[in-house]
Amino acid sequence: MYGLIGRMTARSGQREALIKVLLDGVGGMPGCLSYVVAKDPANPDLIWITEAWESREAHRASLALPAVREAIARGRPLIAAMESVAETVPVGGQGLAASARSQG
Amino acid sequence: MYGLIGRMTARSGQREALIKVLLDGVGGMPGCLSYVVAKDPANPDLIWITEAWESREAHRASLALPAVREAIARGRPLIAAMESVAETVPVGGQGLAASARSQG
Repeated sequence: MYGLIGRMTARSGQREALIKVLLDGVGGMPGCLSYVVAKDPANPDLIWITEAWESREAHRASLALPAVREAIARGRPLIAAMESVAETVPVGGQGLAASARSQG
Repeated sequence: MYGLIGRMTARSGQREALIKVLLDGVGGMPGCLSYVVAKDPANPDLIWITEAWESREAHRASLALPAVREAIARGRPLIAAMESVAETVPVGGQGLAASARSQG
């Protein structure tokens, strides 16, 4: 599996709009096992995104999906900064698709 | 919703054993919407844990569950360091329980 932990800073006052764009784009992405969008409670512009994918390739392929490309285009003007916190290798847990619940 | 992003450093050579303890303890925790355990690909001792819960209280209550208390006791000797990266407010995404897929 392939995982990402990232932080996205919305332009001032644009976090809600950016979250909507992010959530609109995440339905039915092949190979996506988990994609959680969260607000930072202390910083009103900060969004955390934690992801788990069947593979790096599945994640890369998702970037070509029309819905994702559209979300990226709609989201870009709302984003002040993006930061990758970590690339990870998910190994299991709760909230992953059944096939991935415990893989090395 | 209530979320956590954390890093755990296993004692040298103990990451696999610690991951097993973590995964053993996560089944059926009430209010747990997502709990993903991941390896850091660059650091052989580092584990990332990303969590989403229905509420802070649900997370706190989980710490009293027998299976979780046992996992904490078994895991403690294997842990060199723990660090909270962020407390978050998940607002939706994929891989969360149906009831939580899009909440404020």
